Amino acid sequence: MLNYDFNIEGVIGKIKKLNAAKIALQFPEGLKVHATSIADEIESKTNSKVIILGDACYGACDIADQEMMNLVDIIVHFGHTPLPLNYKIPVIFVEAYSRINIEDSIKKSLKNLDGYNNIGLVTTTQHLNVLKKMKTILEKKGKKVFLKKGIGTSEGQVLGCNFSAIKNLPVDAYLFVGSGNFHPLGIKLFTKKPVIIADPYMGDVRSIDEFSDKILRVRFAKIVKASEANNFGIVVSSKEGQFRLELAYHLKEMIQKSGKKAVIIMMNSINPTLLMAYRELDAFVITACPRIAIDDANMYEKPLLTPQELEVVLDKRDWSNYEMDEIKYDENKNIINSI
Amino acid sequence: MLNYDFNIEGVIGKIKKLNAAKIALQFPEGLKVHATSIADEIESKTNSKVIILGDACYGACDIADQEMMNLVDIIVHFGHTPLPLNYKIPVIFVEAYSRINIEDSIKKSLKNLDGYNNIGLVTTTQHLNVLKKMKTILEKKGKKVFLKKGIGTSEGQVLGCNFSAIKNLPVDAYLFVGSGNFHPLGIKLFTKKPVIIADPYMGDVRSIDEFSDKILRVRFAKIVKASEANNFGIVVSSKEGQFRLELAYHLKEMIQKSGKKAVIIMMNSINPTLLMAYRELDAFVITACPRIAIDDANMYEKPLLTPQELEVVLDKRDWSNYEMDEIKYDENKNIINSI
Repeated sequence: MLNYDFNIEGVIGKIKKLNAAKIALQFPEGLKVHATSIADEIESKTNSKVIILGDACYGACDIADQEMMNLVDIIVHFGHTPLPLNYKIPVIFVEAYSRINIEDSIKKSLKNLDGYNNIGLVTTTQHLNVLKKMKTILEKKGKKVFLKKGIGTSEGQVLGCNFSAIKNLPVDAYLFVGSGNFHPLGIKLFTKKPVIIADPYMGDVRSIDEFSDKILRVRFAKIVKASEANNFGIVVSSKEGQFRLELAYHLKEMIQKSGKKAVIIMMNSINPTLLMAYRELDAFVITACPRIAIDDANMYEKPLLTPQELEVVLDKRDWSNYEMDEIKYDENKNIINSI
Repeated sequence: MLNYDFNIEGVIGKIKKLNAAKIALQFPEGLKVHATSIADEIESKTNSKVIILGDACYGACDIADQEMMNLVDIIVHFGHTPLPLNYKIPVIFVEAYSRINIEDSIKKSLKNLDGYNNIGLVTTTQHLNVLKKMKTILEKKGKKVFLKKGIGTSEGQVLGCNFSAIKNLPVDAYLFVGSGNFHPLGIKLFTKKPVIIADPYMGDVRSIDEFSDKILRVRFAKIVKASEANNFGIVVSSKEGQFRLELAYHLKEMIQKSGKKAVIIMMNSINPTLLMAYRELDAFVITACPRIAIDDANMYEKPLLTPQELEVVLDKRDWSNYEMDEIKYDENKNIINSI
């Protein structure tokens, strides 16, 4: 059995209904192993021609709609929920729900939540189908559960670049259900409240505090190192949902007004090899996916900063106001190009 | 002194003449080290805003015109000559001519050219400015030199995907001036004539024969291995000048008619990590840059084939008719999507 529920029958139904003859399939890295069998199934059960999109893809910020505009009728995008962007061709979003059992982890987390009555419940896309179940388990144990719809995200859903669903909730603590430390780190830094992680993959329940302290020490060190920088590279991603060129121009001006130099470098996916060529640059500011500067810091020789960290470097923001970077969407102006 | 002559003053003149306010600079990998200083110089001497394009770039097949259409007024592309493509915004091509001395190598090559009177002279973009000088040296030694303009290339110029400038010349041997073995390999395989390499970088003069024999043995081994394949991935690049989707459809049909399975996978740049996800595929056919299957063969776990090699695998072409892959351009139909 697959670890994910893709609902391919539903996809095939939509393809037939839309009468789509040419289809592109897009998968995040972890789901690409299923690409060829899904392509086979769709081709054999419809009259369509299928192209698998092979570029790396980490979010709905990165739909290949512009690229595929005149080549296919629809894109089927797996594993992410839509962002408030204007996609140029129809995109079927297939939420790949994990089949992992989350009950045990949540029950285990109750001990860590002892003493907290009002709980902010948060998860990521692949567990949204069991959000109600999570809530019920907590409520049965007497907790009051708070869920909030974010800007461009569902109730209780955070993304690596969007924490709007957890802000300003009247809660004592947050319970994050999912894997990894990045999302709970963001919740911690935005709310300053206790954050408990119920991780069904590792099977453990842990607090974010230790990780959060460690990351803040690393970030502080990067900021100190970047304070000596005279030449900055401001990196912009050309991915539709990460494209913050106006922000980059704004940061460039800020750097220049501080008597330092800056160039804007645009690329699709950012990696250490691509930045290696710019030997005379001392530090990079990443306006693309906010995870890159934090998660991938050790892969890069030179410090990578978020826009907010650059403000600290240039004395425009106090370290005590440290904030995670977010890519803010609103309904009128797809991407707000400022911090 | 720079190893290349970029003629930045000329570029600045053109920028002023075109009144360009927003400019993107694109460099191949080897020239990216000069990107920030050139960006600085252009910004300080014009009223323009400059963006450096940071994605990997290996040829004029890969101009970012579509991507930058509404973002900049012009692209300045360094190091490659234009291909017969319809660029969507003005592109200034800056041929980055190498300042390396080629005279000694050519003089040295005369010994190897002994006995051959009619010489086909060939080089790559970065030495086109000294083509006449090369010709003169050879002529002074009594050689008759043949040069031919290719389809989409200058007189005496070959690309990794375009050998039209060397075909059907009434010569006894070819002299290739430049680095690497890929281009002379192509000349050898297309013409079956002696090919001498005058390599000013290595400082040596050599025949392609040994390398050519070695590569043919490797290719034969890949073809034998791929003959056992049941599942093929046909890889298409979305780069404008490498985009051969129609060819991919044609190859898919050919594979299916042979009772085997095939999927089409589209990506921008091809690399081993991106192909690793497709565990159930046994071999890949690369319709993108013809160099990938040959030059990068050892980086990939599974055999990569050129379209012509696939024909050998499927018994549609005899091994004795082995041919390098080329991306053929004509003036009417940008890219000819067939072999």
